[in-house]
Amino acid sequence: MFDKLDEIKVLRDPIHGYVKIEYKVIWDCLGTKEFQRLRRIKQLGASFMVYHTAEHSRFSHSLGVYELSRQLVFDNQSINDYLSEYEKVCVMLAALLHDLGHGPYSHAFEAIMNTSHEEFTKMIILGNSEINQVLNSYNENLAKDVESIIAKKHKNKVLCQIVSGQLDADRMDYLLRDAYFTGTAYGEFDIARILRTLLVKDNTLCVKESGIHSVEDYIMARYHMYWQVYYHPVARSYEIMMHSLFKCYFNYLSKGNESIFKPFDDFLQGDISLQAHYQMDEATCNYGFKLLAQSSDKVLSDLATRLINRDLFKYSDIKNEHDLIAKRKEITEKGFDDKYYVLHDQANQRPYQPYHGADENFIYILSQDDNLKELSVLSPIVRALLNVEDQNDIKMYYPKS
Amino acid sequence: MFDKLDEIKVLRDPIHGYVKIEYKVIWDCLGTKEFQRLRRIKQLGASFMVYHTAEHSRFSHSLGVYELSRQLVFDNQSINDYLSEYEKVCVMLAALLHDLGHGPYSHAFEAIMNTSHEEFTKMIILGNSEINQVLNSYNENLAKDVESIIAKKHKNKVLCQIVSGQLDADRMDYLLRDAYFTGTAYGEFDIARILRTLLVKDNTLCVKESGIHSVEDYIMARYHMYWQVYYHPVARSYEIMMHSLFKCYFNYLSKGNESIFKPFDDFLQGDISLQAHYQMDEATCNYGFKLLAQSSDKVLSDLATRLINRDLFKYSDIKNEHDLIAKRKEITEKGFDDKYYVLHDQANQRPYQPYHGADENFIYILSQDDNLKELSVLSPIVRALLNVEDQNDIKMYYPKS
Amino acid sequence: MFDKLDEIKVLRDPIHGYVKIEYKVIWDCLGTKEFQRLRRIKQLGASFMVYHTAEHSRFSHSLGVYELSRQLVFDNQSINDYLSEYEKVCVMLAALLHDLGHGPYSHAFEAIMNTSHEEFTKMIILGNSEINQVLNSYNENLAKDVESIIAKKHKNKVLCQIVSGQLDADRMDYLLRDAYFTGTAYGEFDIARILRTLLVKDNTLCVKESGIHSVEDYIMARYHMYWQVYYHPVARSYEIMMHSLFKCYFNYLSKGNESIFKPFDDFLQGDISLQAHYQMDEATCNYGFKLLAQSSDKVLSDLATRLINRDLFKYSDIKNEHDLIAKRKEITEKGFDDKYYVLHDQANQRPYQPYHGADENFIYILSQDDNLKELSVLSPIVRALLNVEDQNDIKMYYPKS
Amino acid sequence: MFDKLDEIKVLRDPIHGYVKIEYKVIWDCLGTKEFQRLRRIKQLGASFMVYHTAEHSRFSHSLGVYELSRQLVFDNQSINDYLSEYEKVCVMLAALLHDLGHGPYSHAFEAIMNTSHEEFTKMIILGNSEINQVLNSYNENLAKDVESIIAKKHKNKVLCQIVSGQLDADRMDYLLRDAYFTGTAYGEFDIARILRTLLVKDNTLCVKESGIHSVEDYIMARYHMYWQVYYHPVARSYEIMMHSLFKCYFNYLSKGNESIFKPFDDFLQGDISLQAHYQMDEATCNYGFKLLAQSSDKVLSDLATRLINRDLFKYSDIKNEHDLIAKRKEITEKGFDDKYYVLHDQANQRPYQPYHGADENFIYILSQDDNLKELSVLSPIVRALLNVEDQNDIKMYYPKS
Repeated sequence: MFDKLDEIKVLRDPIHGYVKIEYKVIWDCLGTKEFQRLRRIKQLGASFMVYHTAEHSRFSHSLGVYELSRQLVFDNQSINDYLSEYEKVCVMLAALLHDLGHGPYSHAFEAIMNTSHEEFTKMIILGNSEINQVLNSYNENLAKDVESIIAKKHKNKVLCQIVSGQLDADRMDYLLRDAYFTGTAYGEFDIARILRTLLVKDNTLCVKESGIHSVEDYIMARYHMYWQVYYHPVARSYEIMMHSLFKCYFNYLSKGNESIFKPFDDFLQGDISLQAHYQMDEATCNYGFKLLAQSSDKVLSDLATRLINRDLFKYSDIKNEHDLIAKRKEITEKGFDDKYYVLHDQANQRPYQPYHGADENFIYILSQDDNLKELSVLSPIVRALLNVEDQNDIKMYYPKS
Repeated sequence: MFDKLDEIKVLRDPIHGYVKIEYKVIWDCLGTKEFQRLRRIKQLGASFMVYHTAEHSRFSHSLGVYELSRQLVFDNQSINDYLSEYEKVCVMLAALLHDLGHGPYSHAFEAIMNTSHEEFTKMIILGNSEINQVLNSYNENLAKDVESIIAKKHKNKVLCQIVSGQLDADRMDYLLRDAYFTGTAYGEFDIARILRTLLVKDNTLCVKESGIHSVEDYIMARYHMYWQVYYHPVARSYEIMMHSLFKCYFNYLSKGNESIFKPFDDFLQGDISLQAHYQMDEATCNYGFKLLAQSSDKVLSDLATRLINRDLFKYSDIKNEHDLIAKRKEITEKGFDDKYYVLHDQANQRPYQPYHGADENFIYILSQDDNLKELSVLSPIVRALLNVEDQNDIKMYYPKS
Repeated sequence: MFDKLDEIKVLRDPIHGYVKIEYKVIWDCLGTKEFQRLRRIKQLGASFMVYHTAEHSRFSHSLGVYELSRQLVFDNQSINDYLSEYEKVCVMLAALLHDLGHGPYSHAFEAIMNTSHEEFTKMIILGNSEINQVLNSYNENLAKDVESIIAKKHKNKVLCQIVSGQLDADRMDYLLRDAYFTGTAYGEFDIARILRTLLVKDNTLCVKESGIHSVEDYIMARYHMYWQVYYHPVARSYEIMMHSLFKCYFNYLSKGNESIFKPFDDFLQGDISLQAHYQMDEATCNYGFKLLAQSSDKVLSDLATRLINRDLFKYSDIKNEHDLIAKRKEITEKGFDDKYYVLHDQANQRPYQPYHGADENFIYILSQDDNLKELSVLSPIVRALLNVEDQNDIKMYYPKS
Repeated sequence: MFDKLDEIKVLRDPIHGYVKIEYKVIWDCLGTKEFQRLRRIKQLGASFMVYHTAEHSRFSHSLGVYELSRQLVFDNQSINDYLSEYEKVCVMLAALLHDLGHGPYSHAFEAIMNTSHEEFTKMIILGNSEINQVLNSYNENLAKDVESIIAKKHKNKVLCQIVSGQLDADRMDYLLRDAYFTGTAYGEFDIARILRTLLVKDNTLCVKESGIHSVEDYIMARYHMYWQVYYHPVARSYEIMMHSLFKCYFNYLSKGNESIFKPFDDFLQGDISLQAHYQMDEATCNYGFKLLAQSSDKVLSDLATRLINRDLFKYSDIKNEHDLIAKRKEITEKGFDDKYYVLHDQANQRPYQPYHGADENFIYILSQDDNLKELSVLSPIVRALLNVEDQNDIKMYYPKS
């Protein structure tokens, strides 16, 4: 149904050994400008400001998610039997393309736009893009089907679960990959065993009970990576300072000042075409900071210079409202505009929360007596973790001196 | 105070890179017959019947515990400052020698003796042994001090905690080592970070709050290793069958039959000298099984042959007493003596139980506000795990056909 | 043709992730007493006297060779296409069973027997053994075909090359495995790339030119492992002392003294049945040493005690004959019998020697212009290595004091 | 002499575990804008176009070289004894700062400038930079001494050898790091053993003979990394196309056309200040390509677009001059300007070439009889490798269709 390459292409990858590409449509997607753009977006945004080797891109991660989905649909007997070739290609494409819409330093960027990266992903796959042309050249339904898997709307629930469930190719790749590239041991778990014990039962992706300890380990790995890496306050400091810089530049423009860097203007003014999105990567973003750093506006110049040279705000916990009020007063007295110089954010993560939302949040286990059960029913560890109270980490950020 | 070697000796070790030996007394202990005997005792007893590469010895583990304790007392600034050179050498010796008393397949062996491996360790260190001679040749108090650390009775609590607390050189080495040699990922945790964040405060070994996630990971690693490796029912099957064989041989001797293998007789009859203990290793034990396998007693011969050729009993859960009664009936009807052919045991493990026993079970954290707190007070994860209900795994074992 | 198991069996293995068993005949062979015996033979003989963690068995190695051969015949497209299912099962069985004939501390043992381990392997596979019964129960030609592959006599040369060529499953497993279990980095090479670039061309197993750097690395890994591990003088000291002990016991018996340990007598007197071979493992051997250590013969007792407690002879290079003569004189003057107390041996290894022997020593490369060429024709590195002069390492061994 | 930080700073690093910073002057250098700029320069230039995960920066590498030099000067007893504290700090600073002068995609950039990265490094350390201010604030000789180590001109030869000899912190870090981040196994060698066997003898850095096998392994690792990674033709294709683009833009400006991207103009016109160098990083470079891609000049636009979207030229070997002439003709006939569309380069590497240049190319071994000898005198392997003939890899590059 789908043409294969004359020879399987193999790309060296430290996480999976090799990424193997057999289908022509996958290879063609790799060559599009929208996919190549992901080389210029770091997977972990500002985390390399803390973990200096966290410099890997969304391009590498996307290949990894593709490879895991490929192993799932071909090497896992149960999934292999359950899916048609068309569905397999769809799910591998969804895995490969699920992050197309990301911008540089996603959190800071999405905060200034009205459009999420998910919407951009949809626009790229369905809109006027090289990706869309490639997909259409193979099958007229392909773009639509791939997009519906990424959007978790495809009628075959298993396809959605493979790409983005609770125990999916996306998360499994990023935990392993981010652990490898940060050099931490937190994100490691027994991927081989999970891949081997996954299966489809009653049209649901689930894990055999013999694999339950690997899943517990995965839950813990995820939890630790959030607190040790993803929510690290130094990275949050960088991103919230970037947000402050964009706010400042927006106000600067609003006052009728002349544009300093056109690509930023488009984004701040909500005029975001696919072409503008394509141009906006970390190279563009970082070059823009250099121009802002040369501005005569003192705040713009100061914030941009700090971002470039990693002269970041320090941080402390906000225990009650008075902390923030006191800090604003203190910083203002030192001559800073507290609107841009006293910032705050909040991080929140619990290990596993199946009952907060739809049942798509469930991890299913196939018990020894052949019934599907939600993970915490069978795992005393996970059952205990359900009772972990919310950990709210509320912090403020401000200049050192 | 203690002589050093002309040149530091280094032994290649996959877990710690190198084991480094600087003191002559350590090197001399390595050369004793009691320490060399540990080469002939597997670290994990019968686990190699499940994980075929779990063939590493207590000799390797003992070197690893020594090396970790060496790193703790010299490379950790806080502990280094806290201890005298004499105490450092004592704790390294205690680490090296803590397992001297182990027999082959410890669980099965201890079940037939009236003496625990801890008592043998004490007898070797304080009694008429090459080890005792070496220790005495350096300092007349050394043997006594080393033994009191191993027995957790030394007045300097930190020395005991380094060798066998809740977060000690013994457990940290065996989790990492057993994970490496079984090829499982369960026992891995961030040892470098724990070594770095340990310190002495108020005469107590504790971990800085910034290392708390590594400790949570360690708790989970320990828990998973218990269920995935240490309590694996195939290894339990092997050990309980060995126990059954010894019981059978004891009864055989009690009936006035002639001895088949003298070294077993001594142990079964409680006549256990240091010399008998020294002779009893896995070579002796396995050779003894071969002689029992050639016995004319059918049960002795059958059980011994099964052990040698890994023809193990199968197992199933005991859900209530009737299961066991029914199984005994069934097996008896098949012509087996259920005394030796229907066996049962129980495994039990919770992730962390600080309040079940003395406060020596506590893991202490030094909070950011500089107070010692028990781990679960500061870790919401560990607090949740305290509520994990007891997992009793009660199984019975019986012939396949 | 060959029955498959209801469910694929998977065994955890640190080198290959999992060993996967799909065919019933493979599983049945695992359960035989002859295969289980390999658990009681160390892969590296006395090397654990130097590298303390080199305690892995020939059982583990045999499973590893089986797994690599399984990957080669099923996952490598070219080999998969080239072989019939019968040939695939034959080659996997040959890989699994190729080391059956090994005794404990092979070098020392073979030196006292007139029978090589290869001959024992043949006797077990073709003779009156459980292995032979299993093979016969599947196909009457199976035992013969498996044995001819192991003996490199099978008419299909590719089958022999997979199991024991120059770039074969046996060597690839032992280099990786021995590196892992000794904790050295020398034995590592890019196995994934070699597995991927192997193929069958003109009825010959060869490597695509794009994989040539991996093969160069493998040649170097092999060379380094020989000098750093396999020929380490401490292990050679242990084995040559064992040989001296056997020689001494043989003379002791020859003088009409009463037997001390019957299993040794059989071997020394060349009366070696399959049953005697089956009984002779490291447990038996080590137990025998204990009995010899209690002998009233001073040399027997001394040598055996030294072996048990690792009180090994020291060593030095023999630069000319006078060195040995002088040492004999010196040791004799100290009251030792130089026949048993001054020993010598020789180790010799070159990196790659294709032209010393039959062309079975060739590693073939498929050049970009589609011709089979011997490795050194295409690799300037290997071509240079052909000129490495012989490295003869001649050593003598004698008591320390 | 040099102030220490209140608390040792530790940075997680996948290659060395942790990078440890004890001296304030090191920490201050990390915070300068010139050092932070290295975050925006990839260590391997265009290699991530082949090995997609080779995205690590010169920032990470510089920290790694620092850490290795720190381990050498403090943890290696012989070097520790040999150097004063001042020399130790100098050598660590030289290690940290040795790559400051690099531009983005060094090979392409240096080809268009008249200034090498070594000269820029010197200008930054000695000139008007934040780095220079930091160094001067500690000691007035520091900048000069650090620079002379980097330039291999310092009178204490050992300092130069630690940073950039034949077996130095720079190469050892990049081989291990590049192997890790590409996911290849080629660059691995036994760093722990080399660090342990290095020592100073007769004012020369050398390796004890017992470490010679690790050095042989290192030589092979280096050789393989060159051919498998550093000289990979896809990366060379990217860099030579970039060079062609710059040549084209230079001619475009020469003809009097208006500037498209000012930062490129400065470099092309040889007007290179420290400020211009500071601004020129990969963000600037990549943003410049986007502007060139929008140019109305067809060649500029085409080449820039190809670089951005990885639409690279294909390549083939040049076996004689006619190949190149024929290709130029063919490409011209297809309507391309062969000046920009038929490119060629040459790569050349031999494993170890001590006698081609000064004796700074020697690796010294301290023989067992306590004499310094050049590596190939003692290593038969390396002696053989001296005879490896030159491998000239001459390639041409041109559009696919």
